[in-house]
Amino acid sequence: MSTVDQQLEDLHETITNEIPPDITVTEVKYEGPELVVYTRDPKKFAQNGDLIRNLASKLRKRITVRPDPDVLTRPEKARDDVMGVIPDDAGVTNLDFHEDTGEVVIEAEKPGMVIGRHGSTLREITQTSGWTPEVVRTPPIESSTVSNVRNFLKHEREERRDILEKVGRQIHREELSDDEYVRITTLGCCREVGRASFILSTPDTRILIDCGDKPGAEGEVPYLQAPEAVPLNSIDAVVLTHAHLDHSAFIPLLFKYGYDGPIYCTEPTRDLMGLLTLDYLDVAAKEGRNPPYESEMVREAIKHCIPLEYGDVTDIAPDVKLTLHNAGHILGSAVSHFHIGDGLYNVAFSGDIHYEPTRLFNGAVNDFPRVETLVMESTYGGRNDYQTDQEDSEEKLKRVINDTYERGGKVVIPAFAVGRSQEIMLVLEEAMREGDIPEMPIHLDGMIWEATAIHTTYPEYLRDELRDRIFHEDANPFLADQFNHIDAGEDERQEVADGDQCIILSTSGMVTGGPIMSWLEHLAPDPDNRLVFVGYQAQGTMGRRIQSGRDEIAMPGDRGRNDRLKLRMDVDTVDGFSGHADRQGLEDFVRTMNPRPEKVLCVHGDERSAQDLSSALYHDYNMRTFAPKNLETFRFL
Amino acid sequence: MSTVDQQLEDLHETITNEIPPDITVTEVKYEGPELVVYTRDPKKFAQNGDLIRNLASKLRKRITVRPDPDVLTRPEKARDDVMGVIPDDAGVTNLDFHEDTGEVVIEAEKPGMVIGRHGSTLREITQTSGWTPEVVRTPPIESSTVSNVRNFLKHEREERRDILEKVGRQIHREELSDDEYVRITTLGCCREVGRASFILSTPDTRILIDCGDKPGAEGEVPYLQAPEAVPLNSIDAVVLTHAHLDHSAFIPLLFKYGYDGPIYCTEPTRDLMGLLTLDYLDVAAKEGRNPPYESEMVREAIKHCIPLEYGDVTDIAPDVKLTLHNAGHILGSAVSHFHIGDGLYNVAFSGDIHYEPTRLFNGAVNDFPRVETLVMESTYGGRNDYQTDQEDSEEKLKRVINDTYERGGKVVIPAFAVGRSQEIMLVLEEAMREGDIPEMPIHLDGMIWEATAIHTTYPEYLRDELRDRIFHEDANPFLADQFNHIDAGEDERQEVADGDQCIILSTSGMVTGGPIMSWLEHLAPDPDNRLVFVGYQAQGTMGRRIQSGRDEIAMPGDRGRNDRLKLRMDVDTVDGFSGHADRQGLEDFVRTMNPRPEKVLCVHGDERSAQDLSSALYHDYNMRTFAPKNLETFRFL
Repeated sequence: MSTVDQQLEDLHETITNEIPPDITVTEVKYEGPELVVYTRDPKKFAQNGDLIRNLASKLRKRITVRPDPDVLTRPEKARDDVMGVIPDDAGVTNLDFHEDTGEVVIEAEKPGMVIGRHGSTLREITQTSGWTPEVVRTPPIESSTVSNVRNFLKHEREERRDILEKVGRQIHREELSDDEYVRITTLGCCREVGRASFILSTPDTRILIDCGDKPGAEGEVPYLQAPEAVPLNSIDAVVLTHAHLDHSAFIPLLFKYGYDGPIYCTEPTRDLMGLLTLDYLDVAAKEGRNPPYESEMVREAIKHCIPLEYGDVTDIAPDVKLTLHNAGHILGSAVSHFHIGDGLYNVAFSGDIHYEPTRLFNGAVNDFPRVETLVMESTYGGRNDYQTDQEDSEEKLKRVINDTYERGGKVVIPAFAVGRSQEIMLVLEEAMREGDIPEMPIHLDGMIWEATAIHTTYPEYLRDELRDRIFHEDANPFLADQFNHIDAGEDERQEVADGDQCIILSTSGMVTGGPIMSWLEHLAPDPDNRLVFVGYQAQGTMGRRIQSGRDEIAMPGDRGRNDRLKLRMDVDTVDGFSGHADRQGLEDFVRTMNPRPEKVLCVHGDERSAQDLSSALYHDYNMRTFAPKNLETFRFL
Repeated sequence: MSTVDQQLEDLHETITNEIPPDITVTEVKYEGPELVVYTRDPKKFAQNGDLIRNLASKLRKRITVRPDPDVLTRPEKARDDVMGVIPDDAGVTNLDFHEDTGEVVIEAEKPGMVIGRHGSTLREITQTSGWTPEVVRTPPIESSTVSNVRNFLKHEREERRDILEKVGRQIHREELSDDEYVRITTLGCCREVGRASFILSTPDTRILIDCGDKPGAEGEVPYLQAPEAVPLNSIDAVVLTHAHLDHSAFIPLLFKYGYDGPIYCTEPTRDLMGLLTLDYLDVAAKEGRNPPYESEMVREAIKHCIPLEYGDVTDIAPDVKLTLHNAGHILGSAVSHFHIGDGLYNVAFSGDIHYEPTRLFNGAVNDFPRVETLVMESTYGGRNDYQTDQEDSEEKLKRVINDTYERGGKVVIPAFAVGRSQEIMLVLEEAMREGDIPEMPIHLDGMIWEATAIHTTYPEYLRDELRDRIFHEDANPFLADQFNHIDAGEDERQEVADGDQCIILSTSGMVTGGPIMSWLEHLAPDPDNRLVFVGYQAQGTMGRRIQSGRDEIAMPGDRGRNDRLKLRMDVDTVDGFSGHADRQGLEDFVRTMNPRPEKVLCVHGDERSAQDLSSALYHDYNMRTFAPKNLETFRFL
C-alpha cells in the first residue's frame, strides 16, 4: 500500500472514532489541499456546527464533507429544499447540482445571505437537502470572463476532480530526503522590471513563483531552461502572486512545456489571468508575432488553478505551507508566504505591493508569524523615487481635466485594464459627484470594462469602505451613469473623437498597442487635447519614449500603415496613482514588518532601483540585503 | 551535412592549400581536442620541421599527423628502422606498433633521448620508418599501476578512439545560445574540507570540476543531485585538479550514473586516481561498507581520461578553453584555468595549492593571461593558520627522530601515500646521507611504495632540481637503499616491530584505516615509540582525535575485534610539511597573482577558515570575496 493510501486509511479510522457513532463515513480522500469526507449521513453531520471545525483542528487539515452519492435526493426535489431555506433577498440567479460530488453551486447576487451568520444558512441547506452547498457571486456587471471561467470549470468538473486528487496525493506524499536546505533561484525580474519568475526549492520540493513577460522586450522571457527549473514537469506547484502579464504571461506556456500541476492563486487572479493572457495572445497575433502558446493552454492553466483566500494556510507540498495575504497592488494580488519544514524556514515573496491603502485596496499585509527572508519588489526603489501623495495627485489630475475641459479638449489616459483604471474611475466618479470636475462621459476602451466587471464580482478583495458600499449601500460606484463601454469599435471611437469633451481611459497602459493607438491617431493632432500618464512606463515602451519627450511615434505595422504620427497634444504625467509602493512605501513596508526579516532580496526593479533599495535597507536596518542578478541561486539555512 | 563535418571538410581544404603539393592528405578528423591529419606521405611531412607547427598556429588547433594505413611499412621492417634511429643509451624497453593508427609507442628509460633536440629524433623516426612515434617513460621503479593503465589503454585502444572521436565532435559542435553568462555552482567543499565539486556553466556548456569524498564523513557526498548537475550525461567535460580522494573519489561513480564524456587531467593524476580509487573500493569493502561503484567504473574513468600537460591550451567545449598549471600540491596537481567565450570571461580554480616550492614540487603557478574570478582553497585560511617554515620543520622532525632513536624507540609517521610520503622520504634520505640522523631502515607501508614508483615515472612534474637529479645525475633519491617496501603483510610488520630502531611511513594519513592501524597495535603500547603527524588531520578522523589528546582509540570492527587500544607512545605533530599553502601562502598566492582577480570564492576550508580568508582578502586587496555555502550558484557577467 502506498504511504498516501495508508495515511488516508488512518485518517478514516481517526474520523470514525471522533464523530458520533450514528454518522457513517464511507470514504476519505484528498482533493488538492483538502481532505474530502464522504458520509451517508450528511444531514446529521450538518446538525453539529462544531464537528467539522473540531475535526479540522484535530487533523490540521482543511476538511470538506460531502454526501455519499447513494444517499442523495434527486436534484428536482433538492432544488425546492434549497430554495426554501435561502431568503428571497439573496437574489439567487442559478443553481447547479453535481450528482458526482453531491455539491450544489449557488450563484447569488448576495452570497452573504446564502451563507448566513457563521455559515448557519449553509448548514441549514445541508440539513434540509443533504447536498453540500458552494456559493458564488452573480457579477453585478455582467462579466464574460467570469461566466466563461465558471462554465468551463463546470464542463471540466470531472477532469478537474482527477487533477485535484492527483495533486492531493502529491502534496501528501512522503518526504524522502534527509537533507535540509532552502534555495531561491532567480529566473527573471532581477535588475530589470518584467519577467518575474523564481524557483523556491527544498530537497523534496520545487515551487515556481510567477512566470511573466517583459514589456518592451518581448524576446526576454524567464530563464525556464535554467537547470534549477527543468524538467518543468517535476515542479510541484506554481504560485501566481497576481495577474499582471509581467507575472502571469507565461503561466499557460508551462502546460505546453509539460507541466501539469497546480497553480495556487486567488480566485480573482485566476479570472484576471484568463482575461489578460487571452488578450496577450490576441495582441501577439494582431502584431504579427508568433504567440508562444495557444488559447487551449490558457484553459489548461485555469483548469489547474486551486484558488486560495487571503489568510488560508495551505499545504502545497509535504514540506511547504503557503499563505496568501493582500498585497494592495491589484485585485487579488498577494504577498505569498511560505512556511518550510516544521518550523525550519520562512520566506515571503512580496510580489508587487502597495503599502498605503488606495481607493481600491487595503494596504499590503506585512505581519507574519515568522519570516527569515523577504523577496521584495523594487520598482520604485531608487533613491529619488518618491511619489506625490495620492491626495495631491488627485488634485493635479482634476486640475488637468478642468484645464483641458475649459479649452475644449479631450483627456486620454492610457491605463492598465486591471487596477489603475478602476482607481482612476473611483477618483473621477467622486470628483463628478462632488462637482470638482464637470459631468462628462468617461469612455472605457480595451478590456477596462471587463476588468471592472471582474472587480465587482469579488468585492471581498476591495478596500473595506468600498466593499461595504457595494455590499450594504447598494451604491456601487462602478455602476455610475457617466461610464460608457466602448464596444462598437472604430466607428464609436470616431464618433467620440468628433464629439464633445470627454475623458477616455484606454489600454494598453504603456502605449505598446491596443486601442490607445487609435485614440492617439484621433486625438494627437489637436493641441487642445491632453495625454495623461498615470502609471509606470517601463524602459523600451512607447509610453516611456513619449514621456521622455519624443513627439513623433511610429504606428505599429499591423495597422497596415507603418507611418509616423506627430504628437501635437499636450503630454502630462500625474504620478501617485501607481499600484506600486514608492520608495517611502517600500521602506515603510520593511520597517514596520513584523517580524523583520534577516535577509532581503531586492528584485523587480531597474538595476539602480534594486541596488539603491538594497543598500538603503542594509544601512537603515542592518539586514543582509542583496540585489541579485538573474540566474543566481541563494541558499538559506 | 552536420556542422562538424562541414568544418572538417573546410579544414581539409585549408590544409591541402597550405602544404607542398607533393604531400597528400587523405583524411582529417577530430580525436578529442586534437585534429588528426592522415597523409600518404608521412616521411615528406616529417622532413619539414615547421610544417606542423605552422599549420597548428594558422588553424589554432593541436595537430597530430598520422600515416594513412595504406602506406605503412610492416612492423617487422619498421622495428629495425626505428631502433636504428634511436641512440642505444635511450634504454628502449618496449616498442608497440599500432597498425590502425600508424603509431608506434616507444617505452624508454630516457625518453628525452628518443625525442631529441626540439623533437629532431622523433622526426627522424618518421622520416625513416613512416610511423608516428609516441614516447613514454619506463618507470625507474616498477609500478603496477603504470603498467596496468598502459596495458589497459592498449587493450581498449579501439574503443578509446571512438570515444575520442565522439568527444572531438562534441567539442567542435556549433554554439547554439545567444545568451552570455558564466555560472559556478558549489556542489561540495564549501565551509568544509572534503567532497570538492563544482559546476562551471555557460548557456552552451556544463563542466564538472572534481568530485571527491569527505574524509571522516563517508555519507556526505557532493550534491550531484542538484538541478545544476543533472542529468549527468549532459555534462560536457569533467576536469580533475588532482588525484586525492577528496577530489577524485566519485569520479568513477559519474560513469555509473550515466556520464560518458571526457575527464581532463594530467597523466600522473590519471594514474594516481586509478591507484587511489581502487584502494578506496578496497578499503570500503574491508570496512564492510557498500562500495558506491565497482572497479569496472575506475577502468571506465581511465578510458575516458584525456591527459593534458601543464600549459597546453585546450578546447574542451565550443566556448571553453582549459589550461592546467602546476599547483605544487601533489604529483600532477593542477590549477585549472578556464577561458570562456572569445575573451568573455576567465575563471581559475586553484584546486589544492602549495605556493612556496617544496622538495618535491615547484610552487603553484599564479600567472595567467587573464582571470576575473578565482575559486580558491582555504584549508589553512584561518587567521592563525601559519605554519612553521619547512626548514624549521625538518629540523624538528630530525630532532624527534634522533630523540626517539636514542631512547631505543621507533618512529611511526602516518602519511598520505601520495605527496607527503615522498616529501618526507626526501627529507629522511638527505638527513641520513648528510649524517643528521642515524642510518636505519625506513619502511614504507600501504601504497606509499607504489605511489613513489609513479612519481619516478613522471619526473617532468617534479621540482626542477629533483627532476634534474633523476634525469641527469642518475642519482634518484627514491632508489636509496634504506627504503624498504613492506610487501609481506602482517608477518613482516611483526618482524619490524620486534626488531631494531627504524622509521615507518604508513597509510592512511589521517588514521582512518589501512596498515597504520596495525602499526599502532604493534607500537602504541611502548612509551619509547613515537607517533608523528606530518599532515592535515580533518575533523571527524581518528588522526584529529589523537592529535587533540585522545589516548584510547577504538580499533575498526573489520579486524574481528572491536576493542579499544590504549596509546602509550608519544604523540607529536610536525607541521610545515603540508601539501597545502598556509595562511601566508594563500595570501601570497593572491597578492602576487597576475592579473589580480576581481572576485574570489574561498572554498575547501572549515567555515571559520573560509570566512577568515574571505574577509582578509577583501580588506587587504579590496576584491569582492565570498565564503559560499554548498548548493549556491553565482553568476558572473
